[in-house]
Amino acid sequence: MSDRVNRQWLLARRPQGMVSPADFEFVERPIPELAEGEYLVRNLYISFDPTMRGWMEDRESYMPPVALGDVMRCSTVGQVTESKNPAYARGTILTGLFGMQELAVGGQGFMHGTPVAEGTPLTWPLGVTGLTGMTAYFGMLELGEPKPGETVLVSGAAGATGSVAAQIAKLEGCRVVGIAGGPEKCAWLEKEAGLDAAIDYKSENVEERIRALCPDGVDIYFDNVAGPILDAALANLALRARVVMCGGISGYNEEKPPPGPQNLMNVIIQRARMEGFIIIDYVSRFPEAAAALTQWVREGKIVHQEDVQVGIENAPETFVRLFTGQNLGKQLLKVGDPVDL
Amino acid sequence: MSDRVNRQWLLARRPQGMVSPADFEFVERPIPELAEGEYLVRNLYISFDPTMRGWMEDRESYMPPVALGDVMRCSTVGQVTESKNPAYARGTILTGLFGMQELAVGGQGFMHGTPVAEGTPLTWPLGVTGLTGMTAYFGMLELGEPKPGETVLVSGAAGATGSVAAQIAKLEGCRVVGIAGGPEKCAWLEKEAGLDAAIDYKSENVEERIRALCPDGVDIYFDNVAGPILDAALANLALRARVVMCGGISGYNEEKPPPGPQNLMNVIIQRARMEGFIIIDYVSRFPEAAAALTQWVREGKIVHQEDVQVGIENAPETFVRLFTGQNLGKQLLKVGDPVDL
Repeated sequence: MSDRVNRQWLLARRPQGMVSPADFEFVERPIPELAEGEYLVRNLYISFDPTMRGWMEDRESYMPPVALGDVMRCSTVGQVTESKNPAYARGTILTGLFGMQELAVGGQGFMHGTPVAEGTPLTWPLGVTGLTGMTAYFGMLELGEPKPGETVLVSGAAGATGSVAAQIAKLEGCRVVGIAGGPEKCAWLEKEAGLDAAIDYKSENVEERIRALCPDGVDIYFDNVAGPILDAALANLALRARVVMCGGISGYNEEKPPPGPQNLMNVIIQRARMEGFIIIDYVSRFPEAAAALTQWVREGKIVHQEDVQVGIENAPETFVRLFTGQNLGKQLLKVGDPVDL
Repeated sequence: MSDRVNRQWLLARRPQGMVSPADFEFVERPIPELAEGEYLVRNLYISFDPTMRGWMEDRESYMPPVALGDVMRCSTVGQVTESKNPAYARGTILTGLFGMQELAVGGQGFMHGTPVAEGTPLTWPLGVTGLTGMTAYFGMLELGEPKPGETVLVSGAAGATGSVAAQIAKLEGCRVVGIAGGPEKCAWLEKEAGLDAAIDYKSENVEERIRALCPDGVDIYFDNVAGPILDAALANLALRARVVMCGGISGYNEEKPPPGPQNLMNVIIQRARMEGFIIIDYVSRFPEAAAALTQWVREGKIVHQEDVQVGIENAPETFVRLFTGQNLGKQLLKVGDPVDL
């Protein structure tokens, strides 16, 4: 591969229902000359996050949609290989929204990189100390407000965000129950991540299991999935419960949004609070969160899993794994190795 | 009527779907001798509130259900006609949960009265300065947190709680849109209550009208109805919107709770908050709220409507009016006049 030819995945069409590799188009394009202030990034790891599914829709949200024909937006870790920007020296490892492609021109639009601290494993800034870890950090601590002895329920608990949210609640002295799909994920939650219990939504009656495991109700429900699992959680709220509305992956691939929770009135009866948030609102506090998470991971207080696929040509298939639940932990794609520059 | 014979409406059966007069039984019963600390209350006005529908169900809530065969629980204003409690002199006008009956023995269980300040119109403590007014007061001010210039949407806006909530938001300098059923209620909202606009949910497309009237989104949605109107409001939230979850009358008579809102994910995208509350949690602040509301009503800053039916024999039919939307403002039933004692 020449450094002047880029292989890119473009958004070819808006998905109808479940996202499909056919929604993307693989192209080879030359890299334009760098302008002053720009720099060339070679992607090393591509991150796949459920929120990307929303960016594929033609509707207003917290970021504009990806335009048809544009490179699919996603977070990556990359290395600066050329630079006309003195702040980004050749060789710098950085993270940013450099897209589903091998090479990216940084320094314009959303394409701004944040240098990765030396000694940090390359994948961490995309997961456990990056956006998903920080989403867990702010969601659990700021919206959840955990207190020692409280009962915390987390859905998508084996995922990149949920697993960190659950472990932060443990560090805060809570009793934590996780919901995940399949025995492998549940075993990881109980044996590796130190949760008090795990519910396998694929084989168990979630509402009954929540009631059995949380007989005094759920003080904090950290929701990554919405749909029937949110409903089951709402049926089991404790007085003054907090529902941290982080995501709703169960509905992201539905052509029409699925019906909402029937048990919403329980929010009134239990004087509960449901609150949504988007991680980009906390950008000024990213350094605090990244530092705390890095320390917890280094000390072994937070464990994490990464599911690393390989090869830019496999990007769409890797993305789809998120929605079929095949990923064990943070879904990544390795597309290169750093080089000495 | 002898003062020793009481006419009472008992809960005869749990309602199936829409509440019906046949769910109640009308009986005549002797009044027991008063024990020390008890007092006899003759009810003057009976209050009908949507929350009573929940008390008829056999399920745990913020208060225990009304047992089958017990007098139907409700708020009333009454007068003490006999007393073995020095704190409640004969002649005292008071308000409390004295039930759907002519006479009540106060001083036990939920049957505790709060004296009504002299000079207060008898009906106010059941509505505009009572539980519904105070529900509006705490819900709007504490959960809604209105700021001047914000856009506020209120459903059930012509009702006892909604009309006060809407006018408090006006007093706080907000632009206020109300949703109500029928041209008469909408005209009252715009012409008497001073709202900026009203939406008639019976004849208009609520979601389209909200979008047209609130082009920058809804900062506070005060919800009394849940169901499709909540969904329409969620579709039009402004950034950092607050949804005050006060009630959900649209679903109270459904045998199974109706599906929840499809647009719940917009709470995440707009970083919004949905919060439920129950007025009894604010009991320590009732004097503050009642004083503020009384002053506003006396100054004409808050107007209110009362729908006063007459006769204890009509209690169940009067209750049903709440759920058919026949009531214009606070639904009351007059069952007596105060006497000089």
